[in-house]
Amino acid sequence: MRTTRPVHYLDHAATTPMRPAAVAAYTEAASTVGNASSLHGSGRRARRRVEEARELLAHHLGCRPSEVVFTSGGTEADNLAVIGLATASSGDVVAVGAAEHHSVLDAAEHLTTGRGGRKDVRVLPVDSRGAVSAETVRDLVGEVGPRLALVATMLANNEIGSITDVAAVAGPARAVGASVHTDAVQAVGHVPVDFESLGVTSMSLSAHKFGGPLGVGALLLDRGAEIEPIGFGGGQERDLRSGSVDVPGVVAMAAALDEAVREMESEARRLSGLRDRLMGGVRATVPGVIANGGGDRLPGIANLTFPGCSGESLILLLDAAGIECSTGSACTAGVAEPSHVLLAAGAGEAAARSSLRLSLGYTTTEDDVDATIAALGPAAERARVAGLGLSRAGAGAS
Amino acid sequence: MRTTRPVHYLDHAATTPMRPAAVAAYTEAASTVGNASSLHGSGRRARRRVEEARELLAHHLGCRPSEVVFTSGGTEADNLAVIGLATASSGDVVAVGAAEHHSVLDAAEHLTTGRGGRKDVRVLPVDSRGAVSAETVRDLVGEVGPRLALVATMLANNEIGSITDVAAVAGPARAVGASVHTDAVQAVGHVPVDFESLGVTSMSLSAHKFGGPLGVGALLLDRGAEIEPIGFGGGQERDLRSGSVDVPGVVAMAAALDEAVREMESEARRLSGLRDRLMGGVRATVPGVIANGGGDRLPGIANLTFPGCSGESLILLLDAAGIECSTGSACTAGVAEPSHVLLAAGAGEAAARSSLRLSLGYTTTEDDVDATIAALGPAAERARVAGLGLSRAGAGAS
Repeated sequence: MRTTRPVHYLDHAATTPMRPAAVAAYTEAASTVGNASSLHGSGRRARRRVEEARELLAHHLGCRPSEVVFTSGGTEADNLAVIGLATASSGDVVAVGAAEHHSVLDAAEHLTTGRGGRKDVRVLPVDSRGAVSAETVRDLVGEVGPRLALVATMLANNEIGSITDVAAVAGPARAVGASVHTDAVQAVGHVPVDFESLGVTSMSLSAHKFGGPLGVGALLLDRGAEIEPIGFGGGQERDLRSGSVDVPGVVAMAAALDEAVREMESEARRLSGLRDRLMGGVRATVPGVIANGGGDRLPGIANLTFPGCSGESLILLLDAAGIECSTGSACTAGVAEPSHVLLAAGAGEAAARSSLRLSLGYTTTEDDVDATIAALGPAAERARVAGLGLSRAGAGAS
Repeated sequence: MRTTRPVHYLDHAATTPMRPAAVAAYTEAASTVGNASSLHGSGRRARRRVEEARELLAHHLGCRPSEVVFTSGGTEADNLAVIGLATASSGDVVAVGAAEHHSVLDAAEHLTTGRGGRKDVRVLPVDSRGAVSAETVRDLVGEVGPRLALVATMLANNEIGSITDVAAVAGPARAVGASVHTDAVQAVGHVPVDFESLGVTSMSLSAHKFGGPLGVGALLLDRGAEIEPIGFGGGQERDLRSGSVDVPGVVAMAAALDEAVREMESEARRLSGLRDRLMGGVRATVPGVIANGGGDRLPGIANLTFPGCSGESLILLLDAAGIECSTGSACTAGVAEPSHVLLAAGAGEAAARSSLRLSLGYTTTEDDVDATIAALGPAAERARVAGLGLSRAGAGAS
């Protein structure tokens, strides 16, 4: 028997529903045929649609169309940037922020291996907002100089929503010839992003984070960048990303971004209002709750620590009450590890295990927020009692 | 002004129209939300749909569900197999058929570089059908023994449609502990494919070749295989393919395969009838035409050499007459190089530059075939005259 209780989806940072305009663009494009590499009329029409999508992305993101490389998503875009740029560089030092997504962190880790060129990978400390500072990069540049191959620093953190001043971080690194990559997966479609004024070498985005399809993304890449491909085959996308271009996918991504950008200003106002209502309501209901992040941040993400509660227990209790959220990145949600982002931002392990990410999006309503506030009080109470029980049981057994 | 003349699409091997059942499955899945890695109800429902798609693929392809690794398409699946299996092996010899797709050939080429582990890559000769023989592999095994890390030999060739006896080729290689990968991108959905009885380590497939969406594919991978990932991040798909799983994409791929398999027997009969009608009609109309391949082959591919004609001129002339086809792989269709497949199969460079691939699919009708036959006579005549003119001009200029 299925429940008919409405579900309140507060996990938009994991994936946001595909916008009806994007679904329509997808199905319309999918109803025609054509491989964008083919020479005949259908192929040329497919290619034209791909180029129109490329132009729309470039228009909204402040780059040239020729700087858009379509990929299968944010992970591939991050991998291509980190591995491709670092490998093409004669520098041997690669620096990544400690609060980056695993698609950046693990790609950097790969660079330390034989296949990755045995680079000297430095994990840069971040502040309490999860952001790398310009000073940290300046210090690194002072130490390693032109040995610096690449710095990766995300534009908006996926767990706590903090926005990094990427332009300030990029400056000192690029001054010594290093590449700078920024993961803008959570930012694109939610806050204004201008590739050129960020001053980076590359920037990744993922369609399903702003209402486009899953399995589609892009890397914006400075035309002058030296980069090596990480995939091999037909040589599509300037020989940087082989494989038949997903024509309906990129068309749908462009349609989603177009809508997201047009609604951005009003949505940002609406969502930050809902987020503040959520955080205020939770603070009034749950004693001792701590808000993580703060300062310049995405309008739709609230990251809260509930001392004494297991984040996973909270998720399960909230899920039973029809509230859907996560402890952090969905990518690692299956693994019961404390958030590396919160740890890097200075939280203790207990706090990092006691946190929730509540992320709002274009379908979120006041009703969703109020239902979440109402459910969080009893859920936190129960999780705290269970947590105490576990601690006692643990103490008894030790 | 647009032409209203019907287009006859004979390029199904490049990409085949997405089946209405697959479009419906996609849009239905896209209208729900959920990241398959999330713990809450929507996430679990998304994961269940992914697992149902995995089971359907496994059922139709003769493997276990746990042996299906979803990827962004055939290229990524081939790259993962070739690079991942070779890198994980202590053997240093990698052998690939000379008529493989570039996603295999160029991945193997990468293995010769420092980042690829400086493997000793051997390109295996193929017969006039483009197929590697068991004897060739036995000879190689005799020479290098357990140094053999991997053999890659495609199941059905993408340009001439020839089917290789993969099980016979795989036997001697696996007997010395080597991995065997087969690219089944053109075979799946068109001829019966049974992973287990092929006796290979891995097999790639691509949804858009059988009426599923672009940007989705899979690698079937023996549970016991040792393999290293080529992408890094959230650790989805048994840590072998990071990135949020494309839930609507894999659901649509499974729907397309289900329909393709159910219709396979009748479609194979219908398409080989149409192909024979096409080849007979062309032979009767165009003197001197040569059929490439033959023997055991896909029902829907005809590869023909028109001596004295440039393949590219033929494509453009046919396109003007409403007939869409290609000279070979769409992936390299933008590059005016002779087909490496035909060269490997023993054709001279002139013949390899004078060939067309006419590929039929589920939407192909008798009318398409007859229109192609009618158009090919005058097109070949014109292309031959133009070719003679070019030869003379070339002679005069030299």
